[in-house]
Amino acid sequence: MKLSQFQKYMQKEKLDLCIFMNDDPNFFYFVQEKPNKSTLLVFKKGKPIILSNALEEKPKGFKVLVVKKYYEQLKKLAKQKRVKKIGVNKKHLTHPQYLKFRRMAKLFDVEEKLLELRAQKTPVELAKIKIACNITTKIMNKLIKNLKRFKTEKEILQFLKIETIKNDCELAFEPIVASGKRAATPHAAKPGKISNGFLVVDFGVRYKGYCADVTRTFFKGKPSEKDKELYYRVLLAQQKAIEKAKVGIKCWQLDAAARRSFGNLRKKFIHGTGHGIGVQIHEKPNLLKGSKDILKENMVFTVEPGIYDDYGIRIEDDVLLTMRGKVVLTKVRKGLVSF
Amino acid sequence: MKLSQFQKYMQKEKLDLCIFMNDDPNFFYFVQEKPNKSTLLVFKKGKPIILSNALEEKPKGFKVLVVKKYYEQLKKLAKQKRVKKIGVNKKHLTHPQYLKFRRMAKLFDVEEKLLELRAQKTPVELAKIKIACNITTKIMNKLIKNLKRFKTEKEILQFLKIETIKNDCELAFEPIVASGKRAATPHAAKPGKISNGFLVVDFGVRYKGYCADVTRTFFKGKPSEKDKELYYRVLLAQQKAIEKAKVGIKCWQLDAAARRSFGNLRKKFIHGTGHGIGVQIHEKPNLLKGSKDILKENMVFTVEPGIYDDYGIRIEDDVLLTMRGKVVLTKVRKGLVSF
Repeated sequence: MKLSQFQKYMQKEKLDLCIFMNDDPNFFYFVQEKPNKSTLLVFKKGKPIILSNALEEKPKGFKVLVVKKYYEQLKKLAKQKRVKKIGVNKKHLTHPQYLKFRRMAKLFDVEEKLLELRAQKTPVELAKIKIACNITTKIMNKLIKNLKRFKTEKEILQFLKIETIKNDCELAFEPIVASGKRAATPHAAKPGKISNGFLVVDFGVRYKGYCADVTRTFFKGKPSEKDKELYYRVLLAQQKAIEKAKVGIKCWQLDAAARRSFGNLRKKFIHGTGHGIGVQIHEKPNLLKGSKDILKENMVFTVEPGIYDDYGIRIEDDVLLTMRGKVVLTKVRKGLVSF
Repeated sequence: MKLSQFQKYMQKEKLDLCIFMNDDPNFFYFVQEKPNKSTLLVFKKGKPIILSNALEEKPKGFKVLVVKKYYEQLKKLAKQKRVKKIGVNKKHLTHPQYLKFRRMAKLFDVEEKLLELRAQKTPVELAKIKIACNITTKIMNKLIKNLKRFKTEKEILQFLKIETIKNDCELAFEPIVASGKRAATPHAAKPGKISNGFLVVDFGVRYKGYCADVTRTFFKGKPSEKDKELYYRVLLAQQKAIEKAKVGIKCWQLDAAARRSFGNLRKKFIHGTGHGIGVQIHEKPNLLKGSKDILKENMVFTVEPGIYDDYGIRIEDDVLLTMRGKVVLTKVRKGLVSF
């Protein structure tokens, strides 16, 4: 990905080396693979090196050093290369790792810079995200066709998981399938029977490391006029937020647009309007009150207003912003589906 | 689980409070659930408290405090309870978390004690592990019946994943399906076509948080006498290691027994003989050269010798040790299956 841009930043900050552990999203960002027990070393010039061990498969296209005494050999390498300042992602280092690296050189947190670089996607990333969104759309549409045959939330969860595997993807996150009062907790985790009323399904696949994230709310039984009104108020709030999206606008303005649209319902909207997606399911930009992020071209983010009472209703799509405008990448139908 | 034993230890070490983040296996160990963004607080007496936020579902049977300003409220609580010494699992704390907790009190690492407590399973844990092993056995037997219909390693991977979901489990780890030269890397990750020769399948489900872990090696095509000999040498090494297992024996002795059994093949055995399983796929005891662990009753561990050359052969089962003897919990057939 944006390795040369990152190396320019390293030169500016006088970082001789950056170290990323394999569970760090920045490891995946640069390598586009996630081998076990490996560490990525990015130098301020030249090709990165991956440290690995004898039991693991090696990523292609990278220089891989198989090491036995991990910290000792890393220390030796740092000494050879006269490393004085090391960039790390502190939030992805355990305290013992931090202490060991600190013994090698001065440490500097590169988290923010990488979140900023990663927020604007490259063409390769956009291609993967679009595929993730297409597969997610396809699976959600298949779910809608089959809604009537599901008796429990668990059956829907299993359907989503099996379709994900059949489509050669992973889950971007543990799907949420929640009806009735359970849906009043936005991250409801324990499935039960499908109750009458609103049913929230929040789901997305990860394709070659890149996430999609979509939510639809269905209705079991016959929705009343009141139910329909609530649903379409959420949809309207989402449309108002999406309408605001353009290059240069502040992210909090999309959040404010959704809240304004809710009017007297705004107290029931208890979370943010959206978040960036990429190698992580939550990344920059943040579409929240107080966010300092600004929308830029090639950002991809969710827009997902919702209201929660003794029910839950949420509608979420993934939006790509370009200089030519915005594209909603998740094309699942949006009218209220009852079953 | 062993909360009162752990609290006795806390009293001995003068720990007023222990903090476990929700991605820490010790969180799951005590709570037997894994809610998002939650923190477990264990006091030296009385019931633990879980800190959570408004968006998450709450675990049952625990006092749950919904907090907004996480660190501030935790600090206040620590002050109220006059906390002077806090137990943490340092390897599961990020450096920023560590710094924040350190500002509240003196920190003390409880990792080793918990690994020790967790190594001997309670009856509830054994019941879950047995179910995990039974389901894993059932799926592996179904795989064996259907081996002929798979053309690629990916098809086998998908089969294992879909069966896991159908059985209402999660994967205990990303399964390994590797044939031919790829199997020479014990943790081979990239699937391809099924080549003629040995095919290693390393798989286990996680049932209600508890892992099973089993490996079988099959043969595509007709094995030569040499191939059969190699296979049965691995099986023999496994039997020799399992035979050694009894309460009070040192874990390195099982490893040594496997190595001794390999004779001239021992150089091809490039990893340890086994590891404990529980809420983590790798936990205590370690069955390795140099391990200081000793086998005790109610430990469950893998025995998994293997040899690697331009092929890979590994046979792995899960063994439960009791005062009455040992039980192999994974009952997948062991003779060489060719297809």
